[in-house]
Amino acid sequence: MSAHKAEGLPDTLYAPIRYINQLGGKRIRPALLLMAYHQWHDDITPALPAALAVEYFHNFSLMHDDIMDEAVLRRGSESVHLKFGRNAAILSGDAMLIRCFELLLEAGRNNNKGATLCSLMAGAATAICEGQQIDMDFEHLDSPSEQEYLEMIRKKTACLLGTCLRIGALLAGSSDEEADILYECGEKIGISFQIKDDILDVFGESDVTGKQKGGDILRGKKNFLYVHTYNKLNSIDQKDFTSRYNKASETGEINSILGTYQSLRVEEYAQQMQEYYLSQAMDCLNRLNIPNISSLKSFARELMSRDH
Amino acid sequence: MSAHKAEGLPDTLYAPIRYINQLGGKRIRPALLLMAYHQWHDDITPALPAALAVEYFHNFSLMHDDIMDEAVLRRGSESVHLKFGRNAAILSGDAMLIRCFELLLEAGRNNNKGATLCSLMAGAATAICEGQQIDMDFEHLDSPSEQEYLEMIRKKTACLLGTCLRIGALLAGSSDEEADILYECGEKIGISFQIKDDILDVFGESDVTGKQKGGDILRGKKNFLYVHTYNKLNSIDQKDFTSRYNKASETGEINSILGTYQSLRVEEYAQQMQEYYLSQAMDCLNRLNIPNISSLKSFARELMSRDH
Repeated sequence: MSAHKAEGLPDTLYAPIRYINQLGGKRIRPALLLMAYHQWHDDITPALPAALAVEYFHNFSLMHDDIMDEAVLRRGSESVHLKFGRNAAILSGDAMLIRCFELLLEAGRNNNKGATLCSLMAGAATAICEGQQIDMDFEHLDSPSEQEYLEMIRKKTACLLGTCLRIGALLAGSSDEEADILYECGEKIGISFQIKDDILDVFGESDVTGKQKGGDILRGKKNFLYVHTYNKLNSIDQKDFTSRYNKASETGEINSILGTYQSLRVEEYAQQMQEYYLSQAMDCLNRLNIPNISSLKSFARELMSRDH
Repeated sequence: MSAHKAEGLPDTLYAPIRYINQLGGKRIRPALLLMAYHQWHDDITPALPAALAVEYFHNFSLMHDDIMDEAVLRRGSESVHLKFGRNAAILSGDAMLIRCFELLLEAGRNNNKGATLCSLMAGAATAICEGQQIDMDFEHLDSPSEQEYLEMIRKKTACLLGTCLRIGALLAGSSDEEADILYECGEKIGISFQIKDDILDVFGESDVTGKQKGGDILRGKKNFLYVHTYNKLNSIDQKDFTSRYNKASETGEINSILGTYQSLRVEEYAQQMQEYYLSQAMDCLNRLNIPNISSLKSFARELMSRDH
């Protein structure tokens, strides 16, 4: 099977892989990996298999998550399990996870780094599984604490972004210390990014974000805004809030929740937190003594200023 | 998380892993790996992480296959997706596949073989996904040819057994040629084993096999006996046979199919094929110049003489 074309037999296994790969998306993970590599080398060609590997991993996790979340749409198109069936989404997802490791071994073939890259990926992948399970477990709680929520998104989202930067750096020949700092930077970017995502879900305009306004509320999903609000309220108001939150997902009416968020200035708080984590990411980059680092800074800022 | 205890948080992710690991099973894959290693070394301790890795892989694939096949029982107990829910079976399966690669990296840490072991495993794992998809695709055919069926079980079952022997050999310091021959041996054992499994499914007694007699017929599953029979018949008899086969899965009445198998001496043919592949496996072992090889021969014969 060629790396990006995902050709092979039976086609029933590979067609779902080609489908999700060509749905597009922002390609943030391979971009981060290549930008890290690019800090040391102009020619990024040797890092391409690893960049592809992290995108394969991400798409594998989307394929399986969409089954678990019963998501209908992925990147504006029919999700894989609806288009090809649940079994195909399970099995083709498995094949993508395996392919991710193969691509990392390919990236490490001529530099003896294959085992290290696989080990980093496996560590991140385990964290992501844990994060996804914690996220699902949250559904059965009134609310996690803000700290628990942040730890969940660290595992589910941020850890992989950090790992992309770390892999790019190590492949490029960075020191372990430089790779560690870039990992930390990526983790902070990831947390900032997820908080931004949660803000946009509630306060973004759907014609800009391409998503249903208040989708998290309508699905009863406990995002950062919910968690912060819940933990700010006294126990009586908490009861009222969760009851209105659950009701919103039944009635499709989100204004009552938006009202609470506005009166508690939740958007402003979330924005501060998002900026705080972004500034921490910038601090990491400032600790690195690398000439090209401004390009990575611009990329991170650009990421946060977009409406996703 | 410790290797075999699968401890970690959240427990909702690790409990299904502990559950399937302690259900038992025949542990054929780690046994083959350790026997291959044992041909060169008395102390098998250094091969234990790799042995655990292949059992993790096998249990991962069972967890996901059971969702796809909607299997109610696994090793006589409730299957994981029924006991813990479908989402847990997907996600905990993913975590087991990742853990398999981690364990192989552990096995290769002090001998610089981690990348090679992961690469072998990834190759086998891809073949297994392809085999499982081909098997599911067969459901929509009247019948594959016998050759197509054998190729499917080569990928779905036999390839992993061969890879277990190959990994054990390479870890022990065998030559590539020796590892190749052991791989081939394992593949033949695997095909022989799967044909035996198909025979037992139809002709075994359920109080001995622990499985429902004729389970494949009742599920409408095209096993080796079905495929051989179908391809032996002329087109009119094929129509009658498939119609009776499908009817059996509706009525639960398998005697008509058993009658066809008996009149065509299908059991005898399948037994000959099973013995043919076993003898091919023995031929591979005879090509190896290794003093302890008789233990591996006995193990393979023992495997085939058991009622599974």
